[in-house]
Amino acid sequence: MTKVHNFSAGPCILPQEVLKQASEAVVNFNELDLSLIEISHRSKDFVEVMENARSLVKELLNIPDGYQVVFLQGGASLGFLMAAYNFLSEGETAAYINTGAWAGKAIKEAQRIGNVNVVASSEDKNFNYIPKGFGIPSDAKYLHFTSNNTIFGTQFKKYPISRIPLLCDMSSDIFSKEIEVNKFDLIYAGAQKNMGPAGTTLYIVKESALGKTGNDIPTMLDLRTHIKKDSMFNTPPVFPIFVSMLTLQWLKKNGGVKWIQSINEQKAKTLYDEIDRNPLFEGVTEKEDRSTMNATFVLKDDQQKETFDEMWKAANISGINGHRSVGGYRASMYNALPLESVQALVDVMKELERTKG
Amino acid sequence: MTKVHNFSAGPCILPQEVLKQASEAVVNFNELDLSLIEISHRSKDFVEVMENARSLVKELLNIPDGYQVVFLQGGASLGFLMAAYNFLSEGETAAYINTGAWAGKAIKEAQRIGNVNVVASSEDKNFNYIPKGFGIPSDAKYLHFTSNNTIFGTQFKKYPISRIPLLCDMSSDIFSKEIEVNKFDLIYAGAQKNMGPAGTTLYIVKESALGKTGNDIPTMLDLRTHIKKDSMFNTPPVFPIFVSMLTLQWLKKNGGVKWIQSINEQKAKTLYDEIDRNPLFEGVTEKEDRSTMNATFVLKDDQQKETFDEMWKAANISGINGHRSVGGYRASMYNALPLESVQALVDVMKELERTKG
Repeated sequence: MTKVHNFSAGPCILPQEVLKQASEAVVNFNELDLSLIEISHRSKDFVEVMENARSLVKELLNIPDGYQVVFLQGGASLGFLMAAYNFLSEGETAAYINTGAWAGKAIKEAQRIGNVNVVASSEDKNFNYIPKGFGIPSDAKYLHFTSNNTIFGTQFKKYPISRIPLLCDMSSDIFSKEIEVNKFDLIYAGAQKNMGPAGTTLYIVKESALGKTGNDIPTMLDLRTHIKKDSMFNTPPVFPIFVSMLTLQWLKKNGGVKWIQSINEQKAKTLYDEIDRNPLFEGVTEKEDRSTMNATFVLKDDQQKETFDEMWKAANISGINGHRSVGGYRASMYNALPLESVQALVDVMKELERTKG
Repeated sequence: MTKVHNFSAGPCILPQEVLKQASEAVVNFNELDLSLIEISHRSKDFVEVMENARSLVKELLNIPDGYQVVFLQGGASLGFLMAAYNFLSEGETAAYINTGAWAGKAIKEAQRIGNVNVVASSEDKNFNYIPKGFGIPSDAKYLHFTSNNTIFGTQFKKYPISRIPLLCDMSSDIFSKEIEVNKFDLIYAGAQKNMGPAGTTLYIVKESALGKTGNDIPTMLDLRTHIKKDSMFNTPPVFPIFVSMLTLQWLKKNGGVKWIQSINEQKAKTLYDEIDRNPLFEGVTEKEDRSTMNATFVLKDDQQKETFDEMWKAANISGINGHRSVGGYRASMYNALPLESVQALVDVMKELERTKG
């Protein structure tokens, strides 16, 4: 079977063996003669899935004691509101870094709860870099940022050094590299990049930091609700959590986050080296801020677009059209994308050079 | 293969052919050589799924013009908050009927937004009946109720006649019988009973009734956000929506809601007739309020529990233990449960009578 080289920006490629296991569980889960999706979430079999998924998160990210892990719903889009609700009160100020569309939405939701001080922004250059050297007000309640900007292809290579708590939307690079969880009061991430399918959102939270706002938080938006009930306050999104568990098992079995980080760096180097070498292409972002997850690039001469598009489609490459707000191309290289797929894209870029250069 | 008789209260039984189609799509969707769960939600193929799912809801429930259908996340538990946010302001009063655990949670969330007038309750008898003959204050903004009470096994057979708008949590009986949507300003329902797997929540809303509260509604909790973006404001829960679409296709192909209603009535009659006839058993709820979805019943003599439990397990029956707040047994007979499964349970009840009676 010709395998598609799947560069989709998310939902995105997942490991083949995970898809196979997930497919089997949809007809017969754990030899129960029942589907995973038609059993009670309170059954022993599903409770075990939930517990495995939470444990794998803790183990793979080396999460210290005092942190809680829950799998919720609503995507990072609901997370923007929950982050503010759980950590900010009316009249207080939170610091936000604006590195693009998602950061902007996080700011908007926080403004409903308290005051927002945008301490740094890269909006002046259509978000093609990560701001540096800005001050962080010590009286702000927290500093919020987006670790990787899927649309623009930028990524924080070093996290801000801050005396106030860090809150981070890591939707598009969690599990792609080692992180120091103890630097954060809250990490949240939609599953649909490196962790699993769309439909569940991971929250990693320092428990002692909760309950300090005095806010009357709606039940479902209060992280303590879900922690108290072991992530089962209401019916959880069973299938997305199960597939996340399988994906984390795959990651662990193969060597964990350290292993995938080295592969991700190799994939990114392979593609960016070609973007820089090939006279027909150029990158969109500042080199030092380039994302290992999402490489954005353009053709220097737009007249070659038609040929290039035909060539990569013929090579079974999928999902590299750029986001409408940036244009050009975006190759997303999430955990499950093999180096061979990046090589296939590089080969097409070289081939274009040979025919057009 | 011995098929399990799956009486689970939810997540619950789904049609075998739906599970098979869903399983296949997890490895290869629409012959794309890609999994359903690894493609962009903005791709033509998934947009079609979303549109089909929304159209099937409209068609199967005969929804009149002026109503919008969206598939969101968070379950009815988040719906409790969204209902109030979108229809109630601070200082205003809403009327609620308290028929059990879920209604109680709906009341709690609404109290954060405005005033709640509990106009009727069956709490005095552990929610074993549906209140009737109560007044509905004409100055309340709306009347909210839970159409079917999964835990207690009661169901509204007739909807309240009201001059104020009706809002209803139909999580556990939507698509089980014909309804008049035009009586409601809002219907919402978690998918995981008659519609699909856990992980998505259906909202059917009269569009002209929105935007009247003056509330500053958080983006993700504002129904207008999702209507404006055709239910794709952010990444939707792809798999749960796809399986919901398949389940609705199955329902349509077989004859729609009218067809399933007659089967559901037949299943309920078969079981309740046996509960009433068999001297060893008795029902938990008032007869006129018995749910066609969830039949709650007890053994008159608890000493027969061990034998009965062994017998139904031996007959491959699953999921009939009662909820801890009611005890005894609960047989959930959602759309996909065949009459044969109900007959299998009835046979075991008769067999117990023969051996113990």
